[in-house]
Amino acid sequence: MKFTIEKNVILEALNNVSKAISMRNIIPILNGIKFELNKDGLYLTASDSELNIKQLIKKEDIKNIDKEGTIIVQSKYLLDIIRKMPNDIIDFEVLDGFKIKIFTDTNNYNLNCMDPSEYPTIKIEESKDPLVINSNKLKEIIHQTIFAISTQELRPLLTGLNLKIMADNLECVATDSYRLAKKTDSVKFNGEVNIILPGKNVIELEKTLPNDEDVEVHIFSNKVLFKYSNIFFQTNLLAGNYPNTNNLIPTEFKYIIKTNLSTFAAAVDRAALLTQAKDKNIIKMIVNDNIMNINSFASEIGKVEETINIECNNKEKLEISFSSKYMLEALKTFKDEDILILLNSDIKPIIIKSVDDESLIQLILPIKTY
Amino acid sequence: MKFTIEKNVILEALNNVSKAISMRNIIPILNGIKFELNKDGLYLTASDSELNIKQLIKKEDIKNIDKEGTIIVQSKYLLDIIRKMPNDIIDFEVLDGFKIKIFTDTNNYNLNCMDPSEYPTIKIEESKDPLVINSNKLKEIIHQTIFAISTQELRPLLTGLNLKIMADNLECVATDSYRLAKKTDSVKFNGEVNIILPGKNVIELEKTLPNDEDVEVHIFSNKVLFKYSNIFFQTNLLAGNYPNTNNLIPTEFKYIIKTNLSTFAAAVDRAALLTQAKDKNIIKMIVNDNIMNINSFASEIGKVEETINIECNNKEKLEISFSSKYMLEALKTFKDEDILILLNSDIKPIIIKSVDDESLIQLILPIKTY
Repeated sequence: MKFTIEKNVILEALNNVSKAISMRNIIPILNGIKFELNKDGLYLTASDSELNIKQLIKKEDIKNIDKEGTIIVQSKYLLDIIRKMPNDIIDFEVLDGFKIKIFTDTNNYNLNCMDPSEYPTIKIEESKDPLVINSNKLKEIIHQTIFAISTQELRPLLTGLNLKIMADNLECVATDSYRLAKKTDSVKFNGEVNIILPGKNVIELEKTLPNDEDVEVHIFSNKVLFKYSNIFFQTNLLAGNYPNTNNLIPTEFKYIIKTNLSTFAAAVDRAALLTQAKDKNIIKMIVNDNIMNINSFASEIGKVEETINIECNNKEKLEISFSSKYMLEALKTFKDEDILILLNSDIKPIIIKSVDDESLIQLILPIKTY
Repeated sequence: MKFTIEKNVILEALNNVSKAISMRNIIPILNGIKFELNKDGLYLTASDSELNIKQLIKKEDIKNIDKEGTIIVQSKYLLDIIRKMPNDIIDFEVLDGFKIKIFTDTNNYNLNCMDPSEYPTIKIEESKDPLVINSNKLKEIIHQTIFAISTQELRPLLTGLNLKIMADNLECVATDSYRLAKKTDSVKFNGEVNIILPGKNVIELEKTLPNDEDVEVHIFSNKVLFKYSNIFFQTNLLAGNYPNTNNLIPTEFKYIIKTNLSTFAAAVDRAALLTQAKDKNIIKMIVNDNIMNINSFASEIGKVEETINIECNNKEKLEISFSSKYMLEALKTFKDEDILILLNSDIKPIIIKSVDDESLIQLILPIKTY
């Protein structure tokens, strides 16, 4: 294998595929990136066996191809090496004994490689009738829900994102059982889907998605392929039945509070300053006749009290406590606008919605403080 | 104590004085910042008993003074609290029982304070005949030397910066015994000085120094006061005799190499990529007839080789190994220009100087690799 390529072209592709390489991987060959130069161009592939990312750099985007071939290059340092190369044009040449020379006129990296025959066969599959979704829309759906997945491996299904499609309605849910994020959107799709995407792979997907391009989503029973701009991003699914979350979200509310997002978020942020992660960053909210009071108390440090004007349908006083961290993360999914905070009692879920848009629901469970 | 002040004014002063507060401090009162409002204005003081920083916010820079007084405010969270306040104007009011209220129309922090009578008396002293030095010059002297101090508490004197003045010549030296940085400058000063400034306090001094202002340096046998823009920055000195470092620096060289700083630094940086901190990030430099070759080798990963053109008076080949980390840190003290690398043999110190400026010398000891 021997070729010459622009630094930025190879750097961007390596940056994309290297997202499949896991720090916790213990299979040596999967620490490598597969370089496969053939008549189409250069295919780069990386895998942690549950996530496979493959990208094609087309023939016409390669400066010069001297010799086709395949090699597995150690991914460690590779991005740094390419990034620091002094020229815009870089030469690659595979040497005898599984080595690669990456070089310019004045510098020369000689890296140990691995035998391509040892690399696992990765089967990238396409379905006949993929879902097609705009990348901006997909990024928004991920951004508005992914933060609410669980990080506890004890309940593995909750570390995933539940994606359902039924009658052209897409629904995406994440929950760690203390809070829940739900986004709906209309799509064109034949058939029904109910799958659980591994959360950590969805986080990597969001990073590699381009702006404003069509993404093909090829859905199978045990895996999904996202295909966009010469990238094949294929992840396994989590096996199991995601809990039914629909009946967790109340539909009727005693308190309908309207407030400005940024005013409310800044007040929560200031009240959160004196709270501590070990106490779940609890703050208290008191709603009383169009005035909202947000406060927190730290015995050694002192207390803080914030007052904001709100519009509320119910004049009866209500006190409710919750995690300020969860509230701030939920608020970050809305654009700057007026929001609705919907309450029933101090022990019932808190619902946050945009005034104008029904497609996003954030739910936070209150915390009992007495 | 009761006053109203602009957010930016109090924030900047708190940011300066809080640099004296030590994370490792175990005396509770020294976790506080002393607020002292009197006829001059507001004095803020913080101390870790070895470093005292005091700043005056003049009366005319305070919006409104209702009542003078003194209180010790916990420094923890204080900067964050002020930074996040929603208004540009903030009210401060001391309440009964050592509490302070920091508030605007819509928010109110109520913080526990400490009894000002328990705060240690801090004596800020001025000498009759201080050294006067421009703050930019002082920042440059610190920047060019401080990185070379030792972080090993086993040799406490080497954790300091040695400052000597003799016959209007200032000399500043830092060394951790593997490398040395020396900066000289001419100053106007009556008398001789040979002191050791605690390195960690000098790092904080550099952060608070303003741009292009006169700094008064009041030097005593056991402490030094830096006075500038209403700030009194007083540090204790390290007691002892700093090792004589003058005879460590060779004055004659067999190899005088001229090279471009940024070309050389980039090559060292690339060669350093495959090195590891546990092996002291060793790289090898080979000088041979106006060609310099820089290389490193990592058994598991591979090797890298850089070639740069140099001007060298000596055509005989020389191989020398050194820490790339130390070399990169030394190179960062020079501006982009041509530099001289001065060598005698593979076991003698490496000296780096600017071609045009004799005032800065960087020394690095080579590492034997055989």
